[in-house]
Amino acid sequence: MEAEASGLKKQQLHTKLNGPTNSMVTPLLTDLYQFTMAYAYWKARKHLERAVFDLFFRRNPFGGEYTVFAGLEECVQFIANFKFTEEDILYLRSSLPNCEDGFFDYLRGINCSDVEVYAISEGSVVFPKIPLLRVEGPIAVVQLLETPFVNLINYASLVATNAARHRFVAGKSKVLLEFGLRRAQGPDGGISASKYCYIGGFDATSNVAAGQLFGIPLRGTHSHAFVSSFMSPNEIIDKSLCRNDGSSTCEDFVSLVQTWLRKIQWTHSLHGVFGETNQSELAAFISYALSFPQNFLALVDTYDVMRSGVPNFCAVALALADLGYKAIGIRLDSGDIAYLSIEARKFFCAIEKEFEVPGFGNMTITASNDLNEETLDALNKQGHEVDSFGIGTYLVTCYAQAALGCVFKLVEINNLPRIKLSEDVSKVSIPCKKRCYRLYGREGYPLVDIMTGENEPRPKAAERVLCRHPFNESKRAYVVPQRVEELLKCYWPGDSVQTPYGVLKSRYPGK
Amino acid sequence: MEAEASGLKKQQLHTKLNGPTNSMVTPLLTDLYQFTMAYAYWKARKHLERAVFDLFFRRNPFGGEYTVFAGLEECVQFIANFKFTEEDILYLRSSLPNCEDGFFDYLRGINCSDVEVYAISEGSVVFPKIPLLRVEGPIAVVQLLETPFVNLINYASLVATNAARHRFVAGKSKVLLEFGLRRAQGPDGGISASKYCYIGGFDATSNVAAGQLFGIPLRGTHSHAFVSSFMSPNEIIDKSLCRNDGSSTCEDFVSLVQTWLRKIQWTHSLHGVFGETNQSELAAFISYALSFPQNFLALVDTYDVMRSGVPNFCAVALALADLGYKAIGIRLDSGDIAYLSIEARKFFCAIEKEFEVPGFGNMTITASNDLNEETLDALNKQGHEVDSFGIGTYLVTCYAQAALGCVFKLVEINNLPRIKLSEDVSKVSIPCKKRCYRLYGREGYPLVDIMTGENEPRPKAAERVLCRHPFNESKRAYVVPQRVEELLKCYWPGDSVQTPYGVLKSRYPGK
Repeated sequence: MEAEASGLKKQQLHTKLNGPTNSMVTPLLTDLYQFTMAYAYWKARKHLERAVFDLFFRRNPFGGEYTVFAGLEECVQFIANFKFTEEDILYLRSSLPNCEDGFFDYLRGINCSDVEVYAISEGSVVFPKIPLLRVEGPIAVVQLLETPFVNLINYASLVATNAARHRFVAGKSKVLLEFGLRRAQGPDGGISASKYCYIGGFDATSNVAAGQLFGIPLRGTHSHAFVSSFMSPNEIIDKSLCRNDGSSTCEDFVSLVQTWLRKIQWTHSLHGVFGETNQSELAAFISYALSFPQNFLALVDTYDVMRSGVPNFCAVALALADLGYKAIGIRLDSGDIAYLSIEARKFFCAIEKEFEVPGFGNMTITASNDLNEETLDALNKQGHEVDSFGIGTYLVTCYAQAALGCVFKLVEINNLPRIKLSEDVSKVSIPCKKRCYRLYGREGYPLVDIMTGENEPRPKAAERVLCRHPFNESKRAYVVPQRVEELLKCYWPGDSVQTPYGVLKSRYPGK
Repeated sequence: MEAEASGLKKQQLHTKLNGPTNSMVTPLLTDLYQFTMAYAYWKARKHLERAVFDLFFRRNPFGGEYTVFAGLEECVQFIANFKFTEEDILYLRSSLPNCEDGFFDYLRGINCSDVEVYAISEGSVVFPKIPLLRVEGPIAVVQLLETPFVNLINYASLVATNAARHRFVAGKSKVLLEFGLRRAQGPDGGISASKYCYIGGFDATSNVAAGQLFGIPLRGTHSHAFVSSFMSPNEIIDKSLCRNDGSSTCEDFVSLVQTWLRKIQWTHSLHGVFGETNQSELAAFISYALSFPQNFLALVDTYDVMRSGVPNFCAVALALADLGYKAIGIRLDSGDIAYLSIEARKFFCAIEKEFEVPGFGNMTITASNDLNEETLDALNKQGHEVDSFGIGTYLVTCYAQAALGCVFKLVEINNLPRIKLSEDVSKVSIPCKKRCYRLYGREGYPLVDIMTGENEPRPKAAERVLCRHPFNESKRAYVVPQRVEELLKCYWPGDSVQTPYGVLKSRYPGK
């Protein structure tokens, strides 16, 4: 399982059912036709008939071979708190003016206590056609859940998969930062991107609200505007900086930096690399270092990376080193990342050698310029010195494929199988309530996922199983699994939901 | 202005400043670096320096020639209610452990009373590089607004533009329905899609929550699951239907439909088109008609459009006509829409002629199968009989280009111009606080948008103006405008915000 191999975190927690993260997720967050159907079921006295729906997708996104399933917890939070308010009823009445009063009384009484949700665990690697969720219950109620369930799972799974794919390309050793809030599709596009990218294998986010909601580590330093808001080091009023060990105070940190800058300029091995650096940038870096001496990371491309940004950064980092602080590194946000990261690394190594500052060569280099799977792959092929990637637009909007086509299909009603036909064979639904199994081979790796009818015998470890493709007779194989895992587990009813990877660890602090 | 010509609604209302639609839009919905910068500004005693930022985009989306600006109202709602809670402060303190207490006291006191927002009016057609917003205020505060402003405007403008483009291709006479909630990027991706598609020229949405929040008209009937949940007309218990005029009741509507179905089968002009229709579908249609006799619209492609769906629909519609009801029409959700819509129209016209039911040939045909700009255009070229399009995935996720690259750039601080340089000339910011004008020609059509420095003379009607491209000397032209419109108007401070097109008319009912 590629995504599992590529850095997903394994801790799991149980979360109380206090409601969906976004208070907009209410029983009205659904398509009108769910209500017109509910009314027609109610009128036909069919509304309590027991129906079984499968939620699945038909194709892996991004032309890939796997999907990471996410969004389950929000679904369970939703149904655990499913209740129409009087305001909702009032609005529905005005939208469906010809419906009988009794129907609205029925809606008033609806909760999800007689609904059952079976699902694959959140964060799992999943495949087309295998149900991610099986939802059973009174048909009118389950229909009302269709749109919110599909909405909550589609984007969550898509962006988690996208994150896992970025992790796979970047490799395990790189730090991956999600920087997408400003480009996300709306406010909770941003918040859910942060959550599900973390599930998909990212290390941190820039999104403070997501940090607060889910306990995801935060990252961020400064922007180009910060750099260009300064004019020159002359405007810095308070120039003093206490040593890291508290033993004394440097009264003029600005002069210390300027001295270092001159020393670097005179350095033989760096001679001719740069002349005068930009003074607005130097002032900004000094100012930032005075505020965050323990976390000095500078954005070095506001004017010119190698002629100004990197030398200015090094002067400040060396002055910090004099006072016992270790700078973190630089961020590159434009230009030829491969080339610039290599040049910057050389510069750092030259400084380490020249001034005997151990570790200076290992300064962290972060890159963040319209990165995506392809650019990461190209960087790897070219060779680069980037340690950490900040990824935004392409990650959170899933630019390469902006939607996952999850669907929700009726497969059984009153214990009778139902099918939806189509001229397009891939759109024919697979009828019947199913059980789903993942068969594992000798090395512990999964071999195949299979579906059986509810009452068919369960495949057994060490016994030969005939696995057949549902629509393609020629695709079949005998498999002897070493282990059999039932994929769909009951998540509702219940009084908590298992959340993946500790994402939500600070959501309900103290509980 | 193409988008204006293509069906945007012109009504405007003023909305009270009660806060953003999504309660997740708080001062923490921003990037961490806005806080680290705010701290560095505060430490450097620069935090109150007056800064001017421009919010703009660099390229029209979808390879097009225009963008529809949206998201302004949410921005104003956001700053009107900008205030950190003690919980926010507590979280920020834990995230920035080395920052001084005084900084958090400063944050506690922040509101946006000394921020000014000048903007182009929401719903306008706008162009690259011209600021959509100019935000002025204390630099630390304005930085905190960057991420939420860009987030709130990026997707809003992108999806409004996408909707306007779909309207342009579909033509003014078609009904356009937004059906994207289930495929949207998260819950408020769905809700804001509904709002901004309406602004962009759509007629209605399937999203009940968006209907409730913004007063957008709702549409929806039933799904394939509804059709396949029925077995046969035998299961219909209550078969009676009152005539539309209330004069009498038909005790067996099912038999009436079955009689009509046989009549259609025997009809000479339709002979051989179909044999036995699907009984599960027939039962579903009858049931739906019994519930919504005034709004009978049937999804006809669960089994076979021409052999089952359309004849079944016609039988029910004719039975309804006997009782004085006029059916609405059919929805096609798969297959060759152009062909099927033409065949269905022929069938309706044959029925009109055969049974002398006036207007039956004009039955509404709605199509809703993975539609987008290209498929609409292809349908127009092929010829079709569709009256109404339900558009989902491609519309709301902006599949063709999932992000608009709005940026927020510092252009002035303390009355001094600031610039961000870049090796890529399109990424160089244009310094200085600006005024922006739209120049109109003789026929009242806009000719060009221009920017001037704040204190440069305002272009005057009937006087020649030299318009120059900011980066391309060869692109220049003299223009004699008949009318000059100043584009950036003050939206904040203020006590209400002008909302476009009456979208929000029911948001604060009674106010």
